[in-house]
Amino acid sequence: MVAVVTGFAVSPDRGRGHARDMRVRWAMEELGVAHEVRLLGHADMKEEPHLSLQPWGQIPTFEDGEVALFESGAIVLHLAQSYPGLLPEGRAARARAMSWMFATVATVEPAVQEVETARFFESGEGWPPARLQAAEARLRARLQPLEARMAGRDWLDEVFTAGDLMMIAVLRRVGGLQERFPALAALVARGETRPAFARAFAAQRAVWESVLASGRAG
Amino acid sequence: MVAVVTGFAVSPDRGRGHARDMRVRWAMEELGVAHEVRLLGHADMKEEPHLSLQPWGQIPTFEDGEVALFESGAIVLHLAQSYPGLLPEGRAARARAMSWMFATVATVEPAVQEVETARFFESGEGWPPARLQAAEARLRARLQPLEARMAGRDWLDEVFTAGDLMMIAVLRRVGGLQERFPALAALVARGETRPAFARAFAAQRAVWESVLASGRAG
Repeated sequence: MVAVVTGFAVSPDRGRGHARDMRVRWAMEELGVAHEVRLLGHADMKEEPHLSLQPWGQIPTFEDGEVALFESGAIVLHLAQSYPGLLPEGRAARARAMSWMFATVATVEPAVQEVETARFFESGEGWPPARLQAAEARLRARLQPLEARMAGRDWLDEVFTAGDLMMIAVLRRVGGLQERFPALAALVARGETRPAFARAFAAQRAVWESVLASGRAG
Repeated sequence: MVAVVTGFAVSPDRGRGHARDMRVRWAMEELGVAHEVRLLGHADMKEEPHLSLQPWGQIPTFEDGEVALFESGAIVLHLAQSYPGLLPEGRAARARAMSWMFATVATVEPAVQEVETARFFESGEGWPPARLQAAEARLRARLQPLEARMAGRDWLDEVFTAGDLMMIAVLRRVGGLQERFPALAALVARGETRPAFARAFAAQRAVWESVLASGRAG
């Protein structure tokens, strides 16, 4: 029996690896966890049986025998605590990795998402420019301390952990990172050169290529 | 040596237990973890040594010997994995509790916070009503599936876990819960009747009362 992860049949990110299944795929590649990906259409996501796995009808979910999880952060942490390779040795270092994982989804990602919402979904609403500017200012306030932290470092802490994996997956979505936050751009680049990242990226990209080939792209 | 948690010397929530140290205090009371609370002024939070514990200069942080964490979700999960009482028996149930913890901070709390931002911080900006309405709609979309889930249940799963603790701490901040989401209001009320909640609430309330008594309230 292999683990099953859900992902978009037709991803809104058009194969750029920004959907939240990417971080779970990447973690499984780092850890060598055999898995298959169940692709869901937008209607499937909002119906049973998926809603029993994910109350909001989102991806990814994870199933492995009797264990089922939702929330990409929970899935990656479950994997990291179940297989060696994504958490460091020592209680103190492991605790810090867990802090970075929560910081990614609770403190950094909401600010990234707010900018995306203001930029893409509300662009036709005729709201004043202050709306996007406020969102951009909140995102900068999240990224500046991280940029400062990365001075002279390869990873958020001593070694690559699930905390870096999560943070890199979110930072990849930030526009203009190289110009504004070069140390964070270097962190992202370091993550993207990992063979496990490349395998996970290729696997999700192949889904999008097949969408294109079949003419199902929106 | 007892664990040390940081909290606001003068909390912007004026003693209502909405600051993020409350969830850590509550978890420690549930688990019987001896602790003290280090109160920080707003200037202290943005300076060393606190910035080395918390990159964004926020509370809470947690220190216990060599272990130091930030992010309330990480702290509560670390506590729940270190002491018995906030995670259920069995791998499947423990995985679900972890999913609820991440869902709280990654999926529900950002929507609560966006409404708070639109309502309180942007109210003088002259933005169109659509801004607050959009934020309210996103919050409703997060809360409706939870409301449906709670039908006939006492907790998010079979027994009270760290997932309920986190979710209740966030739901307490939602206005009009009783009228709009009665099952979630009942969940909150159930949490608030726990003796550990009452002890944690009283402890943070006492800080605010002393602020009032000293004339330092803003």
